[in-house]
Amino acid sequence: MYEGPVQDLIEELGRLPGIGPKSAQRLAFHLLTIEFADAERLANTIVAVKQKVRFCARCFNVSEREECRICRDPRRDPSVICVVEEPRDLMAMERTGEFRGRYHVLGGAISPIDGVGPDDLRIKELMTRIGDENITEVVIATNPNIEGEATASYLARILKAMELRVSRIASGLPVGGDLEYADEVTLGRAFAGRREL
Amino acid sequence: MYEGPVQDLIEELGRLPGIGPKSAQRLAFHLLTIEFADAERLANTIVAVKQKVRFCARCFNVSEREECRICRDPRRDPSVICVVEEPRDLMAMERTGEFRGRYHVLGGAISPIDGVGPDDLRIKELMTRIGDENITEVVIATNPNIEGEATASYLARILKAMELRVSRIASGLPVGGDLEYADEVTLGRAFAGRREL
Repeated sequence: MYEGPVQDLIEELGRLPGIGPKSAQRLAFHLLTIEFADAERLANTIVAVKQKVRFCARCFNVSEREECRICRDPRRDPSVICVVEEPRDLMAMERTGEFRGRYHVLGGAISPIDGVGPDDLRIKELMTRIGDENITEVVIATNPNIEGEATASYLARILKAMELRVSRIASGLPVGGDLEYADEVTLGRAFAGRREL
Repeated sequence: MYEGPVQDLIEELGRLPGIGPKSAQRLAFHLLTIEFADAERLANTIVAVKQKVRFCARCFNVSEREECRICRDPRRDPSVICVVEEPRDLMAMERTGEFRGRYHVLGGAISPIDGVGPDDLRIKELMTRIGDENITEVVIATNPNIEGEATASYLARILKAMELRVSRIASGLPVGGDLEYADEVTLGRAFAGRREL
């Protein structure tokens, strides 16, 4: 055990996701050796993000204003919603440049093991938007893992009862990937999702 | 790219050692979702550690006072110094409970590739201590890697010219390890360092 403030810092850093005790210790010692101004800037940035950044009132993306940059953009198609788990998934989708509608960030995925049910996600808010915003199409872009698939199935079931086009992003082999090294589930999905040429 | 403060935070976190762009993004979003008080406590702890913690004037361990807890402890043998690279190595050695002397933290290891030479480490300070403190024994506990071994060789050469016992911690198979899975270098060291029974 270290003395007071060093131990406090190791414990605080160890609370962060993906930071184990060894990493926390390494980070703490790094912070000890850098310039005071640099450490202070990191501390200030943490506080600033909490003070200035909130979630978009419409889609729950991160935003500095009431509504995020995408929801405010008049060039985006307001009738199509792409549903994602987290803001980082939204950013990944934006980087493709393929989607010109708006988003809806659920804030996670259904995971009974972690005690996350449909009511813990922003599904009610999605339903309200579909009712209010003349939505014609919903693209479900939750992750292609167990939780994301469960969430997609749940959403598909309740959305199909409405007059909407509902789709799911494709699973398959990554571009540049290699059939030989693909896992069976991915390859099976790629086969099942084959498109005529 | 994210909007202002989020992007700032991702960049600040990305400057930390071992935190790549993906981890920085994940940490930033984690900080966005936790309570303000929790984020503020982390920020305050970073600043506190910089304000309160310094390096021991004698051994360069982390300390809240002029001299660290170990150097102040009258039960420690002041005639033996264990030389380590970093404070975390000192803590690792302390956890063994095997060493009852004092330490000297070099602040790194000789590494020509990274531009770290003997003058960048606290070797001059070690020499001053050996002259001033009636040191009879020095145990070199730098890491058993290229840089640590180079540092140990360098120290051994200059220390052997003085009237001192100089030793190096043993390399060998980890306790609970398996001969079959040991790399050749480690197994070779274990063989070379064999002890009569």
